[in-house]
Amino acid sequence: VQPRLSLVTLGVREVAASRRFYVDGLGWPTVLDLPEVVFVQVAPGVLLALFGADDLAADATGGLDAAGPAGRASLACNVDTPDQVDAAVRDWTAAGGTVVKAAQPAAFGGRHAYLADPDGFLWEVAHNPGLVVADDGTVSLRVL
Amino acid sequence: VQPRLSLVTLGVREVAASRRFYVDGLGWPTVLDLPEVVFVQVAPGVLLALFGADDLAADATGGLDAAGPAGRASLACNVDTPDQVDAAVRDWTAAGGTVVKAAQPAAFGGRHAYLADPDGFLWEVAHNPGLVVADDGTVSLRVL
Repeated sequence: VQPRLSLVTLGVREVAASRRFYVDGLGWPTVLDLPEVVFVQVAPGVLLALFGADDLAADATGGLDAAGPAGRASLACNVDTPDQVDAAVRDWTAAGGTVVKAAQPAAFGGRHAYLADPDGFLWEVAHNPGLVVADDGTVSLRVL
Repeated sequence: VQPRLSLVTLGVREVAASRRFYVDGLGWPTVLDLPEVVFVQVAPGVLLALFGADDLAADATGGLDAAGPAGRASLACNVDTPDQVDAAVRDWTAAGGTVVKAAQPAAFGGRHAYLADPDGFLWEVAHNPGLVVADDGTVSLRVL
């Protein structure tokens, strides 16, 4: 798996409140602005996602174990093909990391897995055909 | 304060163990590799920092309140001048965020402050003259 950060997802208590702070308060422009999740571009190819902590926990675990720290935050590494998700899971476990949610079709229309590093920090590895990074680093995101 | 992510710092139990996972295990190359902190570039202009949780907590709070979630992780927004650190603190509080550590000289030779969003997620705003982002997004980092 390449060293590529694609998203930092914050699991927030209330998306609307978080949006008021980052978008209305700080004036950060959105890439995609939905009631359940708000995306802001924060570097070339990198988005900040404001997502409900319960929703993040459910997404990260498949809803099986929605309690615990999984809802707190997640880093994401987007890969170019669905097969690269499975390859990343193999790389990750070979390096000593753990699988939190096995590679599977994702709600957003691609394929993903959730992994944890030795400290329990969450990484999502995802192939998301709706997320496109232009040559200049500008990210566009559409819901499939 | 601009929507700019410069670092994601993970507060880890043991830097050497975290380094074994990310650098030896996953093969991610380092930008700066020190016993107390390891930096990996993960996007144009963006570094992942592996830093001891206790060190991060102490840095974030000035050592006054090193307990609590401050050592868990931090996002950083690097700005171009020392004055922009103070301006960012004003923007942040005007938007409803809180100050965890007031703007002050930083151990790395620049100026920084630690801020929290409404959910308590930590952001460091920093002017770091030792961190330079080239036009192609490559980050170089030196200890001053």
